[in-house]
Amino acid sequence: MNYCSHCGASVIQKIPPGDNLPRHVCNQCELIHYHNPKIVAGCIPEWEDQILLCRRAIEPRLGLWTFPAGFMELGESTEQAAIRETKEEARAEVEIAALYAVLSLPHIGQVYLVFRGRMLAPTCEAGEESLEVRLFPLAEIPWDHIAFPVVREALRCYVDDVMKGRFQLHLASLPDRLPS
Amino acid sequence: MNYCSHCGASVIQKIPPGDNLPRHVCNQCELIHYHNPKIVAGCIPEWEDQILLCRRAIEPRLGLWTFPAGFMELGESTEQAAIRETKEEARAEVEIAALYAVLSLPHIGQVYLVFRGRMLAPTCEAGEESLEVRLFPLAEIPWDHIAFPVVREALRCYVDDVMKGRFQLHLASLPDRLPS
Repeated sequence: MNYCSHCGASVIQKIPPGDNLPRHVCNQCELIHYHNPKIVAGCIPEWEDQILLCRRAIEPRLGLWTFPAGFMELGESTEQAAIRETKEEARAEVEIAALYAVLSLPHIGQVYLVFRGRMLAPTCEAGEESLEVRLFPLAEIPWDHIAFPVVREALRCYVDDVMKGRFQLHLASLPDRLPS
Repeated sequence: MNYCSHCGASVIQKIPPGDNLPRHVCNQCELIHYHNPKIVAGCIPEWEDQILLCRRAIEPRLGLWTFPAGFMELGESTEQAAIRETKEEARAEVEIAALYAVLSLPHIGQVYLVFRGRMLAPTCEAGEESLEVRLFPLAEIPWDHIAFPVVREALRCYVDDVMKGRFQLHLASLPDRLPS
């Protein structure tokens, strides 16, 4: 950040009174600009013993597999964001079964909120950001072609829980870094 | 947002190619500025049959009660944010027991992630943003003086769960609005 998005003057980094972290503060209007982590809302869509995955049509990690997930928008709930991403990326309709994982990625300022979603029908189709979407039996998950470590971690927990016969909420922090 | 925080030129609202929502886009460098919901990480600190609440020393809702909660910072996990807020606002040390509630406030672009925290000692003291902090038996929660509807909702769930003898994760969306 170089300029104040409110008045257009230059900003400097300093610790505002009463704060303990450096912030971008406008030299002219003195507005403090905070930068906070973003929520990525995701969904593991389930149909019988299979889950839906999408092969990414966009960078980063074009051509690799993920469950539907994307940045939560203003004006929606976390559940609505997960349902929307599933519709956009896989043209699939889900209802939320449960929150499944909360995975913090402190290095890149993201928090993944991953839900389990019940597919209302076994129909799906590649959305604009996907090359291909399909249902996978758990034994056929393409482990060597998963887009991000956070996606692999959520899927690993999922398969473990299915083996154990019991889903539980997973709370973790990952040393995950996107390639710059 | 009026100006590009990167180059200082003016921004306009338009739907970028491949997108479906209007964004702030720079007229000069064409950077797209996304605005996303913020995470408020909170903690219900527990000591035996009591919970810790703080009376706010800052606006909005100065003088009213809340559990420790605040905006998650870059570089921390959700659990670290909840622990930090508890230390800052109540000078209390907790370890995270569980994620307790995920409450979306779509009208104000916030998501509350509320944890249950085990206090390591029954000691607390007002931090800079608190007028007063103390442990409350559940029967003495000051229901008429709670700072925000989202805090009341989380506490209501908490008391209900204690009555039932079983904590469960609460997932909800609130029509909550801060006074403008």
